[in-house]
Parts: sequence; structure tokens; C-alpha cells
Amino acid sequence: MEEKEAKAKILDSRYLFKYPWLTVKEEKIELPNRKIIPHYFVLEYPDWVNTIAITKDKKFVMIKQYRHAIGLTNFELCGGCVDKGETPLQAAQRELLEETGYGKGIWRQNLRLSSNPSTNNNWVYNFIAEDVELVSKPHLDEGEDLSAHLMTEADIKNLLNDGKIIQSVHACALWKYLGQKKD
Amino acid sequence: MEEKEAKAKILDSRYLFKYPWLTVKEEKIELPNRKIIPHYFVLEYPDWVNTIAITKDKKFVMIKQYRHAIGLTNFELCGGCVDKGETPLQAAQRELLEETGYGKGIWRQNLRLSSNPSTNNNWVYNFIAEDVELVSKPHLDEGEDLSAHLMTEADIKNLLNDGKIIQSVHACALWKYLGQKKD
Repeated sequence: MEEKEAKAKILDSRYLFKYPWLTVKEEKIELPNRKIIPHYFVLEYPDWVNTIAITKDKKFVMIKQYRHAIGLTNFELCGGCVDKGETPLQAAQRELLEETGYGKGIWRQNLRLSSNPSTNNNWVYNFIAEDVELVSKPHLDEGEDLSAHLMTEADIKNLLNDGKIIQSVHACALWKYLGQKKD
Repeated sequence: MEEKEAKAKILDSRYLFKYPWLTVKEEKIELPNRKIIPHYFVLEYPDWVNTIAITKDKKFVMIKQYRHAIGLTNFELCGGCVDKGETPLQAAQRELLEETGYGKGIWRQNLRLSSNPSTNNNWVYNFIAEDVELVSKPHLDEGEDLSAHLMTEADIKNLLNDGKIIQSVHACALWKYLGQKKD
């Protein structure tokens, strides 16, 4: 269904902003059905990654973090941006180690999604890492205000059912993981 | 876990942009841990809605739409923005009728998520509408380039397993719906 032949024609394109955390491109486009959209805004981001990390004794390594745009502190998966020269898997492993101190384990890709394909140009990769182990202390980036927490699968189900995991990619990854476990 | 007491302090705030499809606020904030972030960008949007709409003969009403930021055409749930004066449920029912011509049915909220709580200030509501019926012809807004398609549950599972439903909220809603059906 990824019909590359049906892309819009880009009639005009310019950058409105190029900040480290916000890059906005304004484009004039002609849709496949010939309609013209004079001002289409594309938000450019690096790819993002996050991980369902599970210890040998079946605890989920979760992050509790304040998110300013929505103004709430909630539980999330550990994740971050893919840096230049990294694969998504390498980025996910680096972020898990930096933010939680957990590493090693058996890794596989769970899904690849778009947070919003009408506004964002990037992909978000989710991985499942089983049998991870605490190998170091967390090393947080400047500006990161978060803490790591170990939770049971029952805790995760309760958070999901109560709508407390609000990040759409993280919630999707966990619903898929739990749904497929039952197959 | 919605700890309202742990919000950041907003030290400065100004609008960089106020366009119909892009409103950006730049804020200087002090995180709960006292770290200062001099340039935090908040994208302001109205709330969004989308619906898992299922006909009396168990067909899913899906939308096929080109999304310019990611540059792909994929299957999605039907959805859109909450207009002023509407509840999320009213918006979801209006969008389904406008985009597909389907209405009536038995509606319930499935989940409320954030596409990205670190960049977006809005919520996305997903509803499940069972026993919907074709009640009119679609009436598309200017600039909408989409088509409605009826699919079986097996089709939906195949799309999910093949990673072809890329919109994170839509994929999450469907994984949750299918996961809970098996309970």
C-alpha cells in the first residue's frame, strides 16, 4: 500500500525554521487528485526509537517523565532520537543504557510507526528487549528529568486499561506485545 | 500518575506562528528538577478524533489517504479535528459521515492518547462504532484526497501485522480492540 507513484507534486518548498528541536518546512503542493494546497507544513525530525525492555525476572523497565507540551508526568517506554551514523537498534540500545543503566538481552523489532504521517516526516521504531540486565548507572543528558522504574506485566496492563500510558507509539507497542503473547 | 503539582514553571512564552494548520509557541521553562530549558517548542492543535467503524455485517470502514509529510498512501481510520462547540464524540460522528457516508450505530470511547506529549498540547480520542449503516454520500472538504473502503477483520489483522497501518493512534486503537476481543 506504500504507493510511491501517488506522491504529491511539490511546487514550492522553503524552511521556515531550523532549530535543534523544531524544523519546519512550508510547501505548496499538488495532491494526487490535482488539488493545490498552498501552505502545507512538514515537521522534520530525526527518527525516534523506544523499547519494551524486560528483565530476566519479567519486570518491565519503564520511565517516568514530565512532558511539557501536554503538561503531565506519566509512565513511558525508554526512548529517544536516532543520532547520525546510528541504526535505530543502536540508538534504542544506547538510550536504554543512558536512561536506565540496563543493557545486554535479546533484541527484536516490534513495529515501525509514524506519530503523525500528515505532519511528521520521520519514523518511530519500537524494539522488544528480553532478559536485559542492569550493567551501569544511568547517565542522563542535560535537561532530562526522568526516573526508571521496574513494573510487573500486571502493572503495565493496569496502566494501559486506565489510559495512563498516553504516548501513542508506546501504548501501541505494548498493546501489540500483550495481544501477540496470547496468540 | 497525572501529577499536576509537578508541572514546569513557564518563565517566558510567545507565539512564533499562528497559522490554521500550525501554531507554535516558544517557551522558556524550568523543569520540576530545576533545570532551565531556554527554548521549548509547543505545537498547539485542536483535539483530534478517529473511529473504528464496523458495519452490521462486521466490515471495518477504512480510509485510504495520501499523507504528504511521510509521503505515502496508507489505510487509516476515519478521523479529523474537533471543531469549536463540539464534543469529541460529535466530531467523530461528523467526520465519519462526511468522509464515508456511514452513520447511526452504537458508539463508545476506546482510548484517549497523545500523538506526542513532548511536542503536542492536544489529545486524540478514539471511538468504536458498531452496527454503522450507510446513510448518505460522502461530502469531502476542499483539499481532502481520500476514499472509503470496507475490509474484513482478517484484512485489518494482515495490515497491522504487515506494518501497513502506520498512524500510531490508529494502530494502537486497533491492536487494543483486537486484543480485548480475545479476553
